[in-house]
Amino acid sequence: MKTGISVDQRIRAAVQSGLRLPTGVEPHLAGALKQTLSHPGNLVRARLVYQVAAVYGVPEQPAMDLAVAIEFFHTASLLFDDLPFMDDARERRGSVCAHRMYGEAAAVLAALALINRAYGLLWQSLDWASPACRIRATAMVESCLGLHGILNGQSQDLHFEPTQPTGRHVMRVAMGKTVSLIRLTLVLPALLGGASRADLNLLRRLAVVWGLSYQMLDDMKDLFGSAMLSGKTSQRDASLHRPNLALVEGAVPALRRLGRLINLGDTALGRLAGGALRWQFLGELRSRLAAEFDQFTRLAAHPSA
Amino acid sequence: MKTGISVDQRIRAAVQSGLRLPTGVEPHLAGALKQTLSHPGNLVRARLVYQVAAVYGVPEQPAMDLAVAIEFFHTASLLFDDLPFMDDARERRGSVCAHRMYGEAAAVLAALALINRAYGLLWQSLDWASPACRIRATAMVESCLGLHGILNGQSQDLHFEPTQPTGRHVMRVAMGKTVSLIRLTLVLPALLGGASRADLNLLRRLAVVWGLSYQMLDDMKDLFGSAMLSGKTSQRDASLHRPNLALVEGAVPALRRLGRLINLGDTALGRLAGGALRWQFLGELRSRLAAEFDQFTRLAAHPSA
Repeated sequence: MKTGISVDQRIRAAVQSGLRLPTGVEPHLAGALKQTLSHPGNLVRARLVYQVAAVYGVPEQPAMDLAVAIEFFHTASLLFDDLPFMDDARERRGSVCAHRMYGEAAAVLAALALINRAYGLLWQSLDWASPACRIRATAMVESCLGLHGILNGQSQDLHFEPTQPTGRHVMRVAMGKTVSLIRLTLVLPALLGGASRADLNLLRRLAVVWGLSYQMLDDMKDLFGSAMLSGKTSQRDASLHRPNLALVEGAVPALRRLGRLINLGDTALGRLAGGALRWQFLGELRSRLAAEFDQFTRLAAHPSA
Repeated sequence: MKTGISVDQRIRAAVQSGLRLPTGVEPHLAGALKQTLSHPGNLVRARLVYQVAAVYGVPEQPAMDLAVAIEFFHTASLLFDDLPFMDDARERRGSVCAHRMYGEAAAVLAALALINRAYGLLWQSLDWASPACRIRATAMVESCLGLHGILNGQSQDLHFEPTQPTGRHVMRVAMGKTVSLIRLTLVLPALLGGASRADLNLLRRLAVVWGLSYQMLDDMKDLFGSAMLSGKTSQRDASLHRPNLALVEGAVPALRRLGRLINLGDTALGRLAGGALRWQFLGELRSRLAAEFDQFTRLAAHPSA
């Protein structure tokens, strides 16, 4: 059995070597790719894909290919998100954004190179599966990454303009923008490994409740986080008119909703076949979500603390 | 046997219905996609894919899926090309560019939706092939659309800065920017249909010589075309410092080079298995290239005409 640390290191190595730059790549494009790949982030998606695949007995190579593929799709989405006509970000993962160092064209082409490589890895990975499984898997990829998923979510996020925004509006955007890729992360490796219909449904539910929870915590951080935690106001969502649950519903109702979501997740998690030990890595993810939830609950109760 | 006209109509219908917009697509994104799909261009790539596939006996459905997929990749590349930080175009296919009507974010997300759908169609199409063929085909797709192909070509085109540009520099950029997708157009359907190694090599050569020829004719039009033909100077490549063979080598040497390429293409075309009747549609493409070549040759000989 491989230890946790060595899995982490293998995943990091696989992500960083997943896209080899051929000689002769134009310097701006090469720079944007090197800059992006040398700041890989926490790789939470790649690790989850790999771990779920391992639970269902997917062999090392297709599991790793799938993990890197989904991490690359995510990284590409960040490169696009940061562009001036999207979120207009300056920094990403503690470093200057690729488009600010190498230009918008280089950032866009780098994102497309990551997407192109991700599909290549996905193909390699799915070649291991049965034809029937491959058909279901490719339909899922198309749905999560397309107009039913992340692309529409991103567009709704940028053009959020209901006259009276409600929590429901905000959650609908998060379903596309955030949940889609988490669904791919949790469900696709299980599908590849031949998980039961029951497990697939539970993982789908976990993707929804944790995806929404994750987005809500992000909304809290935007609205209160930096003001409360570091004395600096960010409130970027308000100034950009972006959907933010805590902004629309208020902190206390939003936290109540978040608490309910975490409970729903606990129920689904407890029903997954194989017991808590097998799913320990999901239990850890749940604990991190709950810890942040507790922190905001305390802050909301004593805002002056 | 189906007639030429009905094939054209079927291809046009397949392209226009190839990406169905689900209900609830955000209006800017939906607008950019509708605007793009309602101006499908001449569909030369889709028609070529379909016709080459037919030569090698690929059934109707995978042939059509592949044709639409490659057309969508091409259309997505145009949406990106036209963005302000790429070619900053105002019009495309006789209509206002999508990003000028619906914003840059909508144009980018629309392009990504076309790419997402193209991969979906590609998967459907390749599911028809043998595993060995599928592996070769996916490697080819990754190579032509990635850092070895169109992405690097586009980046070199945008950042063309050799101190003393030569024809060789210009042709290297065109190999990535233009030839890559034409290679996919001519070779991928043949690969899918189980073409012989000899035919695959000949089609690869045709893609190179015709891809370069096509790019050179485009360069001619940019440099001389509008000035000679309509009395209006365009010379966009010069002002944007883009690679242009006629600009770098002069019209007469560039035309000489173009003539040699067309001859090389004729040799390859003549050697394809099955004879001229089977490849009549490529003969027609060759005639169109040659007619434009003749037109520029006459204009270069009598610039005042």
